[in-house]
Amino acid sequence: MHFKARSENFSERVEKSFAAQTAMQTLGIRLDKVLPGNVTLKMPFADILTQQHGFIHAGIITTAMDSACGYAAFSLMDDESEVLTVEFKTNLLAPAAGEHFLFDGSVVKSGRALTVCEGKAFALSADKDDRLVATMSATMMAVRKRSDVKQRTV
Amino acid sequence: MHFKARSENFSERVEKSFAAQTAMQTLGIRLDKVLPGNVTLKMPFADILTQQHGFIHAGIITTAMDSACGYAAFSLMDDESEVLTVEFKTNLLAPAAGEHFLFDGSVVKSGRALTVCEGKAFALSADKDDRLVATMSATMMAVRKRSDVKQRTV
Amino acid sequence: MHFKARSENFSERVEKSFAAQTAMQTLGIRLDKVLPGNVTLKMPFADILTQQHGFIHAGIITTAMDSACGYAAFSLMDDESEVLTVEFKTNLLAPAAGEHFLFDGSVVKSGRALTVCEGKAFALSADKDDRLVATMSATMMAVRKRSDVKQRTV
Amino acid sequence: MHFKARSENFSERVEKSFAAQTAMQTLGIRLDKVLPGNVTLKMPFADILTQQHGFIHAGIITTAMDSACGYAAFSLMDDESEVLTVEFKTNLLAPAAGEHFLFDGSVVKSGRALTVCEGKAFALSADKDDRLVATMSATMMAVRKRSDVKQRTV
Repeated sequence: MHFKARSENFSERVEKSFAAQTAMQTLGIRLDKVLPGNVTLKMPFADILTQQHGFIHAGIITTAMDSACGYAAFSLMDDESEVLTVEFKTNLLAPAAGEHFLFDGSVVKSGRALTVCEGKAFALSADKDDRLVATMSATMMAVRKRSDVKQRTV
Repeated sequence: MHFKARSENFSERVEKSFAAQTAMQTLGIRLDKVLPGNVTLKMPFADILTQQHGFIHAGIITTAMDSACGYAAFSLMDDESEVLTVEFKTNLLAPAAGEHFLFDGSVVKSGRALTVCEGKAFALSADKDDRLVATMSATMMAVRKRSDVKQRTV
Repeated sequence: MHFKARSENFSERVEKSFAAQTAMQTLGIRLDKVLPGNVTLKMPFADILTQQHGFIHAGIITTAMDSACGYAAFSLMDDESEVLTVEFKTNLLAPAAGEHFLFDGSVVKSGRALTVCEGKAFALSADKDDRLVATMSATMMAVRKRSDVKQRTV
Repeated sequence: MHFKARSENFSERVEKSFAAQTAMQTLGIRLDKVLPGNVTLKMPFADILTQQHGFIHAGIITTAMDSACGYAAFSLMDDESEVLTVEFKTNLLAPAAGEHFLFDGSVVKSGRALTVCEGKAFALSADKDDRLVATMSATMMAVRKRSDVKQRTV
């Protein structure tokens, strides 16, 4: 799907907001690519983010897909809007083992108040084919003029 | 709902597996209480886990609810089983602001292969009522004799 | 949870809107009880609503839970609002076999624009304990002054 | 994605099972196309399946997507397996208004026990572009040798 950005500065807006997410730095997640309605993130495998079998925790994979989806939605919002997650569902398809992970968030339907997105998480390893390890479907909400929801300065 | 544990050592099994989840230590999440079919976790607010508005990232809240639900399911599994998450859905009800967070995972239906759980996340602050900030519904799977899914030693 | 209705006529509003849902009549689903934030529906088993094994189709169970949740949300909305479903997730816990079915929709969080609800479906039989066969978590939306979303007259 | 059927008779198996779903006949849903891992269904608009605003009820749209996803999963199962729905989530993107509806169910990940599928619902009208009105993500389960889950004869 192709979408047209409402803000001329959609890319800078995403970058600035992403930089204000301390959680992304803590988890080692970086912004990879920003297009109108599509954002990809990357994360190296890290032993400090694993569950009991040594795979990346399903919640960490979800955190990255949520950010990818949230910023895909945000990339289509006007300059007055902030983005909040309403809900998401994650299906885990395979244990999250790999050297690197790629997270893709895409807008499926963009509305004034609500945006529906799809996320995908891929495990990448030098000696293996890329593997789809999780999918997400998410609803994001544009919030405007809410005094308790403001981007902090960094 | 009341459930009977299949393993005599359900509590030790949960504690040992939880201790092997490095992600829990990285995020500051601790085991609070283990009953058959019900597990609670706690986490203090930490600025390094926030999104762009200063609230705990929805994915971090989800990570904790996923662990609470997963261990609630695991507490009812036999000694030969490991637990993996099949899927979960999170509804975010309010921004995750607060001093501490409590995560409650409860089994709704316990089957031999699949277990369905419900999770709740509460924000706690000294000067406010406890507040429900997120809910989860999750499907967990018992895996047996799978060579690639073994609890690591810590 | 206890909620206060915004409309004095919340019960009549639910009844009138429910009567305009032809799908409910086609499926044999009746309104059972309306409280602020809580609605229950009933449906007898019908062979014309089954899937290939003779159980009520998961989608029919979902249709009833969606209506129960939607009207639970609607019961708290003001007189200017119509209700639309944003999303729902259903977990099927057991095959839907039984003589009658009871559907319970309850509001978890009521907001101006969005309402989060939980649904439950129970199978009832004369010679068995009531059995929880499915759960739902749903997001409902209040729509106001949208020319294409008006309750039809019946 | 391309999948190889485990059963030589996958198409006949789907057709026979679909014919045993009385709910499909009641709702006017017909089998359109069966490929390994992909099934499409069709349904004309019917006033007896609507909600209060005259759109097809979200639960009816979901019923059709559930069948499309379930049979997409079933098309990849061996001759000894029956299919049951574990869970699904539906996102409603637009009111379900249209002359006909097309439902597409596709397998994302096929496992021995569990299969993950994606569903899409499109509204078709002579004078308008096809419109995506809903999406589904679903988990299906293969059941074998369960005496209470047998396809009935029709």
